[in-house]
Amino acid sequence: MSEKKSSGKMWGGRFQQGTARAVEDFTCSVHFDSRLYRHDIRGSRAHARMLARQGLISDTDCAAIITGLDAISAEIDNGSFEFKRELEDIHMNIEKALSDRIGDAGARLHTARSRNDQVALDLRLYLRDQCDCFEQLLQDIRRALVELARNNFGLIIPGYTHMQRAQPVLVSHHLLAYYEMFGRDRERIGDCRKRTNVMPLGSAAMAGTGLPIDRKSVAEELEFTAISRNSMDSVADRDFAAEFLFCCALIQTHLSRLSEELVIWASDEFGFVDIADSFCTGSSIMPQKKNPDIPEIVRGKSGRVLGNLVSLLTTLKGLPMTYNRDLQEDKEPVFDSVDTVSACLEISADLLHNLKFNHGRLAAAVHGGGFMTATDLADYLVTRDIPFRRAHEITGQVVAHCLNRGIDLKDMDLAELKKFAPGIDAGVFERLSVEGSVASRVSAGGTANIRVEEALARAEEELGI
Amino acid sequence: MSEKKSSGKMWGGRFQQGTARAVEDFTCSVHFDSRLYRHDIRGSRAHARMLARQGLISDTDCAAIITGLDAISAEIDNGSFEFKRELEDIHMNIEKALSDRIGDAGARLHTARSRNDQVALDLRLYLRDQCDCFEQLLQDIRRALVELARNNFGLIIPGYTHMQRAQPVLVSHHLLAYYEMFGRDRERIGDCRKRTNVMPLGSAAMAGTGLPIDRKSVAEELEFTAISRNSMDSVADRDFAAEFLFCCALIQTHLSRLSEELVIWASDEFGFVDIADSFCTGSSIMPQKKNPDIPEIVRGKSGRVLGNLVSLLTTLKGLPMTYNRDLQEDKEPVFDSVDTVSACLEISADLLHNLKFNHGRLAAAVHGGGFMTATDLADYLVTRDIPFRRAHEITGQVVAHCLNRGIDLKDMDLAELKKFAPGIDAGVFERLSVEGSVASRVSAGGTANIRVEEALARAEEELGI
Amino acid sequence: MSEKKSSGKMWGGRFQQGTARAVEDFTCSVHFDSRLYRHDIRGSRAHARMLARQGLISDTDCAAIITGLDAISAEIDNGSFEFKRELEDIHMNIEKALSDRIGDAGARLHTARSRNDQVALDLRLYLRDQCDCFEQLLQDIRRALVELARNNFGLIIPGYTHMQRAQPVLVSHHLLAYYEMFGRDRERIGDCRKRTNVMPLGSAAMAGTGLPIDRKSVAEELEFTAISRNSMDSVADRDFAAEFLFCCALIQTHLSRLSEELVIWASDEFGFVDIADSFCTGSSIMPQKKNPDIPEIVRGKSGRVLGNLVSLLTTLKGLPMTYNRDLQEDKEPVFDSVDTVSACLEISADLLHNLKFNHGRLAAAVHGGGFMTATDLADYLVTRDIPFRRAHEITGQVVAHCLNRGIDLKDMDLAELKKFAPGIDAGVFERLSVEGSVASRVSAGGTANIRVEEALARAEEELGI
Amino acid sequence: MSEKKSSGKMWGGRFQQGTARAVEDFTCSVHFDSRLYRHDIRGSRAHARMLARQGLISDTDCAAIITGLDAISAEIDNGSFEFKRELEDIHMNIEKALSDRIGDAGARLHTARSRNDQVALDLRLYLRDQCDCFEQLLQDIRRALVELARNNFGLIIPGYTHMQRAQPVLVSHHLLAYYEMFGRDRERIGDCRKRTNVMPLGSAAMAGTGLPIDRKSVAEELEFTAISRNSMDSVADRDFAAEFLFCCALIQTHLSRLSEELVIWASDEFGFVDIADSFCTGSSIMPQKKNPDIPEIVRGKSGRVLGNLVSLLTTLKGLPMTYNRDLQEDKEPVFDSVDTVSACLEISADLLHNLKFNHGRLAAAVHGGGFMTATDLADYLVTRDIPFRRAHEITGQVVAHCLNRGIDLKDMDLAELKKFAPGIDAGVFERLSVEGSVASRVSAGGTANIRVEEALARAEEELGI
Repeated sequence: MSEKKSSGKMWGGRFQQGTARAVEDFTCSVHFDSRLYRHDIRGSRAHARMLARQGLISDTDCAAIITGLDAISAEIDNGSFEFKRELEDIHMNIEKALSDRIGDAGARLHTARSRNDQVALDLRLYLRDQCDCFEQLLQDIRRALVELARNNFGLIIPGYTHMQRAQPVLVSHHLLAYYEMFGRDRERIGDCRKRTNVMPLGSAAMAGTGLPIDRKSVAEELEFTAISRNSMDSVADRDFAAEFLFCCALIQTHLSRLSEELVIWASDEFGFVDIADSFCTGSSIMPQKKNPDIPEIVRGKSGRVLGNLVSLLTTLKGLPMTYNRDLQEDKEPVFDSVDTVSACLEISADLLHNLKFNHGRLAAAVHGGGFMTATDLADYLVTRDIPFRRAHEITGQVVAHCLNRGIDLKDMDLAELKKFAPGIDAGVFERLSVEGSVASRVSAGGTANIRVEEALARAEEELGI
Repeated sequence: MSEKKSSGKMWGGRFQQGTARAVEDFTCSVHFDSRLYRHDIRGSRAHARMLARQGLISDTDCAAIITGLDAISAEIDNGSFEFKRELEDIHMNIEKALSDRIGDAGARLHTARSRNDQVALDLRLYLRDQCDCFEQLLQDIRRALVELARNNFGLIIPGYTHMQRAQPVLVSHHLLAYYEMFGRDRERIGDCRKRTNVMPLGSAAMAGTGLPIDRKSVAEELEFTAISRNSMDSVADRDFAAEFLFCCALIQTHLSRLSEELVIWASDEFGFVDIADSFCTGSSIMPQKKNPDIPEIVRGKSGRVLGNLVSLLTTLKGLPMTYNRDLQEDKEPVFDSVDTVSACLEISADLLHNLKFNHGRLAAAVHGGGFMTATDLADYLVTRDIPFRRAHEITGQVVAHCLNRGIDLKDMDLAELKKFAPGIDAGVFERLSVEGSVASRVSAGGTANIRVEEALARAEEELGI
Repeated sequence: MSEKKSSGKMWGGRFQQGTARAVEDFTCSVHFDSRLYRHDIRGSRAHARMLARQGLISDTDCAAIITGLDAISAEIDNGSFEFKRELEDIHMNIEKALSDRIGDAGARLHTARSRNDQVALDLRLYLRDQCDCFEQLLQDIRRALVELARNNFGLIIPGYTHMQRAQPVLVSHHLLAYYEMFGRDRERIGDCRKRTNVMPLGSAAMAGTGLPIDRKSVAEELEFTAISRNSMDSVADRDFAAEFLFCCALIQTHLSRLSEELVIWASDEFGFVDIADSFCTGSSIMPQKKNPDIPEIVRGKSGRVLGNLVSLLTTLKGLPMTYNRDLQEDKEPVFDSVDTVSACLEISADLLHNLKFNHGRLAAAVHGGGFMTATDLADYLVTRDIPFRRAHEITGQVVAHCLNRGIDLKDMDLAELKKFAPGIDAGVFERLSVEGSVASRVSAGGTANIRVEEALARAEEELGI
Repeated sequence: MSEKKSSGKMWGGRFQQGTARAVEDFTCSVHFDSRLYRHDIRGSRAHARMLARQGLISDTDCAAIITGLDAISAEIDNGSFEFKRELEDIHMNIEKALSDRIGDAGARLHTARSRNDQVALDLRLYLRDQCDCFEQLLQDIRRALVELARNNFGLIIPGYTHMQRAQPVLVSHHLLAYYEMFGRDRERIGDCRKRTNVMPLGSAAMAGTGLPIDRKSVAEELEFTAISRNSMDSVADRDFAAEFLFCCALIQTHLSRLSEELVIWASDEFGFVDIADSFCTGSSIMPQKKNPDIPEIVRGKSGRVLGNLVSLLTTLKGLPMTYNRDLQEDKEPVFDSVDTVSACLEISADLLHNLKFNHGRLAAAVHGGGFMTATDLADYLVTRDIPFRRAHEITGQVVAHCLNRGIDLKDMDLAELKKFAPGIDAGVFERLSVEGSVASRVSAGGTANIRVEEALARAEEELGI
């Protein structure tokens, strides 16, 4: 195994042997943490300015640092920066490039700072941005749901419990259930952002520093609402990342539920929706196939997003204070969940824009039996002063009767119905139609057209549509 | 397989065969969901009163229902209530007992309600209570930490990164890092409570109801801040439970970190703490052993609490709208995490009250080498206008020199030091003592006595100590 | 907090304070590990006999121990044994009861043994039994599948990929896919048993013992195939439990796939199966509902079984040698997975016995379009010397043509077909019928009746039907 | 969103709209599944040869295919092959390149094959190779352990339970505990290989094929021991991947345990080992630090390896038959676990080769108290015919006495000892030395030098050292 003097490292002073090449490869993180370069440089700029304000470096040095960082940033932007694995991580790559470029001034940047607080800062800056992106992506998919709901207002679909037809509902009502889910996700992301938005820099390695820094001014420049209160906690804490990963896992769970429904609805047997060709793929062997790959993949990806949450929590389990190198394992699950969930939110919103409900199949389904208005009959009986449990039982008997005769509730004649409950009158039939059933459910949050119109209007207002 | 007519069931009207005994056993949940009885009865009382206010049941029936529920509640309290597995769950057990006791009035209770919204209500009421309990338990362990920190104020302990001695810190500072963690947990529980505190009742099976109910008045009686906005989402949603399980997982992760430290500190090699005999156990074979079982078990239980989170998220994955019986699997992980994390928070707080720091061993450790003030030397050099990276390198060489000679930094003489950096003067030695090092770290959130005293005072104020 | 002298404990010699009551409650495991009593007693009997053979205890003492253990076993069997929480676990409860009953002889039983190797022994004995139970349960569900497949031999069902109709297959072929899955599960359980079947007793606390024991004779009496080779590993190892939990998770995953299909098949839209009333439940509000609760619950329980696996692996993560009290957390996930998976296997097999395929709906589905024989057309074209990719493309065009005209492949007339590929002759129509398609797939493992009959016959032979 | 005609796709015949670009990006897998190219090509070669043997393609076409595939393989090897995202996956990329190169002959390759069985084949071939690699890597780390154990034979280390010193053991014995663990991992990988080594090709899309293929000859050429028995199961099954991921998770758990010990042993307080400089890194702020990064990262990576297992099992949960696109999500967790665990096994073996035990610190620890020979005293008393429980209690009292007086067991004088148990004679002191204690534990699998020598010799034989 080849070795090099590690005194080329930023930390090599006391080392007598170089780092083994295999060790360099194993410990290196720059191939994934380079993604943080903008946040690293933004943090370094603010740190340098503070050092200058506090007289810890000269204004000249500060200016050189800022200019140097700007140049490095531009190089990375345009792809001309050369990342070196032997410099381990993004922090060291940038600092070394800076020193190579501006000499001693660059060697002063790391004053009163450690990689421990620096990486915590970078990850918080990155995740704060991601929270903002996610809030937007969640609004986008909510908008797609609301637009689809608006465009299909009035259309009726069977509502299911246990995958059995239960009660007829408006398609719009069904879609707005997801609007609510993604709305809660947005709130959770907002709460996560609140806890992410705390500035750790100045905690140094773990004990704080004796140099006269001013953490609050750095926080202000970087738009943090607070500074962390305990230097040891600051470098040991990855709670914000775990919370973000949980938010991701729950968003993806919601997407998996929506996707499951799309897959089922797109089956030949349901046939409730038609997904645009451009959002399907075909089969390498079966020429007739048009497969709902997008929702399948979205559903499948719920595994990895949950896996990423498990990954970080397992890594954190049993770690003593303060920074341990195990924490380097925080970034890849975060990046993967960011990429996966962003892409899934985006493609799912697109898919909703490319979805058509099949009116004919839906009409056949809601009128095609399943006794979906049985609850309405029971509720009707309650208004005739029959205790609900008895009403439920009577309705059950009527259903059994219909099943035996192969007819639907609405096909019963009044005389027959009266055998089960004498108090029934002709008004019952209005309640036994699916349209009447839907229209009647006017309780707050119910599926009646009037309620759903209110819900749609509120959603449109919330989204600024 | 023996069978019974399922018409004894509340839902048996249309069924022609009874439920197989094995099926009853398999689907039954009353052995665990009976834990929700208080919340179920509280919800039913509020529901009955609303039904009466809305004229859906008579005042007489309502009074009978309330009296009946009170009696049942008392019976369950005192253990005389007989739960029946064939009635499946707590909801049916209570409703059947009510009907047996008060006849038709009882049969009217389930008007405009379904088990789907009822169980969602019960679980939300239960978890809202648990959020309150957890907030208290988190304050209790924070209080224990603050008291321990106060009682040991001034005591110095090695601070570690990578389990290597890094910089000396105050024991109090170290303990307050956990104060911060559990503080964030409390915020998260508060946010979770906010989203739990939404009233689903009146969503009925999934579509709402046509009966003229008043959901808001029920929400007010039950002290909910809002009613759910979409009836389908209301019965399909378990996000609040998943979020609670995540909060539990993160709390337990924090406990596992604290426990790991206690186990390490209690080892013969560290010897930093002594755990009271009453909080240890012995060995069945090794008479000399005094084992830190409590923190070991607490650490070990992080597995199950994470497992519970995985359990619910996996159950939710890919579930179509709305209620599916899979959701019955929400309760056991919730109950287990509630029990586990409560017990661990409580016993850990007790343990902290029974913990003594070993001053002798700590003194030996902080003064026994490890070059924990090397950063102070580097920082000192920075104040002599040496760029930090150069200062770091010089210090590394000094450390290497000391290692070779088997001495500590503070044992260097000035002349020798000057060979490494001519600008060093006698003032350096104040910085190389552990006490000087600790006292110097006055940056916000740092370990300097003055900062930690402020942090302690703030914590005591927050806790009302 | 009340305390008691812990010298009442088996390990209290060196302790000066009693164990706090809360600590006793927290550390106690007898409420769950009492389930191991038969295995604990079986192990103790074998240990005592060996001690006597080796002259470490007298034959009289040995006889007293055996008699005492038999009596205790009988008491636990009949429910008259009183478990004491303050004695912590099943091992101490039994040993204390033995000493109370037979005096000094009982105090000799723990010679050359520790709870560390004792609990490892008990768990291995328990899991070895469970492996045997699971092998039987897996055979039972395989038998149910084969019987169902036999009874429905010849019945055709759409085969799906992407939940889209793909190619027609025999119901029996579909069912036998699960026969294969559970067969692999059985192999895995067998491999797990092999690694479980290793005897740890005699490793004592962790270093072995100096007393002249004979481990091999104990292994023989307890029917182990080998003794563990390293005493430290013996008490630290829970691999066999983790492997068992993985086997459980994969079995439950298979059950979740089967359950998903049953739920979908039982929907109104598919209507492929009818589940017996006795295996369904109804709705508390919707009288017409007949819900497939069993497969829903089985599917839902895949969460907890995966959670249990995560639980143990997380607990094991980062544990140093050898026994740590964290390992006490091994048993509850194991017990829960044993109970859950056993129950799910059993009820699912029962359910299969109570499942009827709906011939009418299946016939409508397989003949109702979906172009399921398109691959057959493509394969036919291949036999006419058209390269497969070209054949696939032509078939795609034919399908598009049919879609436009609203007809099925078999409704095309020959002249039209020839426009797409001149080489087609009348023989093609045999291939375009679903029966012809099924019958033609004679490749090994294919769905042709002749292949499935062979598969059924082999399965019946394997099961001894 | 830009669209292209999907008729450029291999499956585009029936499609009227092109695939949306975002959809192409989202569904594309070639950026990760290109890793399977060797296995894909190997499978295609065998498939083509079989097609020719069966007369389904001409020998000329077969030769062209083989030549073409060889050329493509060489191009991918040397990096000149251009992967196209719009061709989705490695299979289509290769097949398209083949057709571009050899025309119609290439279009015949996919005869009697589907991507569904093709990808199952590729993944099995890949994982079979990985099983072989893992078996070797496990042997390598076992060899490193055995060599380290051999080189330190005779050296004594405290053995721990509950992180408390328990009994003295040989360092070699401790290391051989890991030899056992990795040995079981190897067995498990072997069992996993057995179940992976089953040939799915010829199952086609899911129903088998009507073309006259010969699956067994393909299996023979590809060195599979069996062909899959059910075509539907063949394309739906990912059990072998899940099993492999579990094996990975358990290996990584073992590595995390070893790493935890190395981190602890490398701490200043333990100081049992010295890790070579080339296997450590330094601090960016603390010049004195030498951090055990390797074992920290290895320990940290247990999170992702467990996460990968959770990922796949969650993806599989509730998937109906047969192939669903969700299954595309099988590969990334597999690849990540392969890479992670391979690298960790390799670097850990390297690390062991660069590890030195610190004889001075170990001697100080084993002779420095902790009463590690207390069990020996108890065992000695047993040989004086004192029942073990009584012996244990007496020893506890002796320990308490020593603690009070601040002395060790071996410092007691005989007269004093006799006060606790009159039967003690001078022979006891031999048992109270750590060397005597170690040497005495001659039970099978115990730490006595004679036993460990045997274990070492056996291990060396097993490894061919």
